[in-house]
Amino acid sequence: MSLLVVGTVAFDAIETPFGKTDKIIGGAATYISLAASYFLKEKINLISVVGGDFPQSALEMLKNHHVNIDGLQILKDKKTFFWSGKYHNDMNTRDTVATELNVLGEFNPVVPGSYQDCDFLMLGNLMPAVQRAVISQLATRPRLIVLDTMNFWMDTAIGELKETIAVVDVLTINDSEARQLSGEYSLVKAAQKILKMGPKYLIIKKGEHGALLFNKEQVFFAPALPLEDVFDPTGAGDSFAGGFIGYLAETKDISFENMKRAIIFGSAMASFTVEKFGVEKLIGLTHKQVDERVQEFIDLVQFDIALV
Amino acid sequence: MSLLVVGTVAFDAIETPFGKTDKIIGGAATYISLAASYFLKEKINLISVVGGDFPQSALEMLKNHHVNIDGLQILKDKKTFFWSGKYHNDMNTRDTVATELNVLGEFNPVVPGSYQDCDFLMLGNLMPAVQRAVISQLATRPRLIVLDTMNFWMDTAIGELKETIAVVDVLTINDSEARQLSGEYSLVKAAQKILKMGPKYLIIKKGEHGALLFNKEQVFFAPALPLEDVFDPTGAGDSFAGGFIGYLAETKDISFENMKRAIIFGSAMASFTVEKFGVEKLIGLTHKQVDERVQEFIDLVQFDIALV
Repeated sequence: MSLLVVGTVAFDAIETPFGKTDKIIGGAATYISLAASYFLKEKINLISVVGGDFPQSALEMLKNHHVNIDGLQILKDKKTFFWSGKYHNDMNTRDTVATELNVLGEFNPVVPGSYQDCDFLMLGNLMPAVQRAVISQLATRPRLIVLDTMNFWMDTAIGELKETIAVVDVLTINDSEARQLSGEYSLVKAAQKILKMGPKYLIIKKGEHGALLFNKEQVFFAPALPLEDVFDPTGAGDSFAGGFIGYLAETKDISFENMKRAIIFGSAMASFTVEKFGVEKLIGLTHKQVDERVQEFIDLVQFDIALV
Repeated sequence: MSLLVVGTVAFDAIETPFGKTDKIIGGAATYISLAASYFLKEKINLISVVGGDFPQSALEMLKNHHVNIDGLQILKDKKTFFWSGKYHNDMNTRDTVATELNVLGEFNPVVPGSYQDCDFLMLGNLMPAVQRAVISQLATRPRLIVLDTMNFWMDTAIGELKETIAVVDVLTINDSEARQLSGEYSLVKAAQKILKMGPKYLIIKKGEHGALLFNKEQVFFAPALPLEDVFDPTGAGDSFAGGFIGYLAETKDISFENMKRAIIFGSAMASFTVEKFGVEKLIGLTHKQVDERVQEFIDLVQFDIALV
């Protein structure tokens, strides 16, 4: 089952109460691909764009995680997308210090012919029109399209965004975005309104408070692991999405029951990501570490009640 | 197994985005006793104080839930404790509009002789010195003492509070209180610090985000049920505590495994409470309704991952 990942590959500069980085490798598609690589044995097809300043070593790092970069445009005389942010003391909120679109400003994604066999499509956070442009280039509709987006597009391109939401299967947003998109405070009501916009499934990410999966009839809640330290939340949502779709693509099962499992695997990947700056923790994990982390999630919520 | 509940029996006036009440029956011990009554078949021994203005009908309501009010002092020429609060739009925060201590100002709890056979003691939120005065009146130490408290005592009587915390088995506080009491932002670190203050177990209540149970080696997370509407959060924490200790007292099992079950039953009771104003929903539930609600919790978090 081939997985196509579309999203940013970027430089980030991050400040948290625990420290500060120079320009480090980031971007939604980077986190998604790395997290997915722990589950999907096949190559992960990446579509993105970087500038001539993007280091060869980072491309090698992606290849080492069996990411296919045939669809990664490298614009030699331009600069890579750059984002800089500073987290507040509670680590739940952040200010954007700088955004330099650079190559992203005129990004026209091109789906290489070798990527056409796409069963699972993960659209990382990007301009909604760009996300839809990828879908329209695919000759056959993928079995499952997962869309991540953010409040910025709700503020600035709600029409485009709604058109894109209408044609995907799974939407992942956070709780305040679910409230903004639906105009409902109750997440149960918000979910039902959003599911009427097109997607069959909605995942509401609540950060340190876990995640909810809704379809029209069912709801599932996955906790976040209580951690000693959250070092850097950047990329947590993307790592979650990567683990989620990587697990689905490998198991080829898109039932609600299997999505529940996929959310636990995604949550495990997110819990690793936040323990170090950037992608540092996500590189070079062992499958044993991943399994042990998933076991912690199982132990965390396991209880045994026999109702008469 | 006899259960002794100590705490306020009060009048509340509540305003939420959904409406406003006149003086209605409230108080920590009221919610605790009512919630516990759905699990414990024996009488629940109540210690509290009210004024001459407290209605006979409310006393009958408590008796109908097999609450023993022999330890409820009625000071005929005084007024019942009154609290008035207004919830903000997010329902997670509230302002206290008025607090009239009245009978609570000089409350000297007296443990009737018939209450001496006490295996489970639930100390609802009250002045820490008053809570400890109850413990010291018991000839035999209960098998399990559960203490609820709040940030107000951390601000105004931290010495007294720490003395009380040191002699109980289970402490229940919310996440911001756990951070305040420990000086740690990470709840994992906060829990370990607080467990060094005396209690063997710590329950951190996170409202709509569920609850965590810690001992020195283990952690358990119980979700809150995603609800269509939260009508009035007043008493949710007390209903949680009541379901928790009621279930433990009935099953006579204070293992970590059974505490996990007790937390789910407590969470179920809290989920009922918030669906109507005051104790309205907590009166006259059927056991079938409670079981169905617990089943919703089971379904909400159930997943099946077989790690190799």
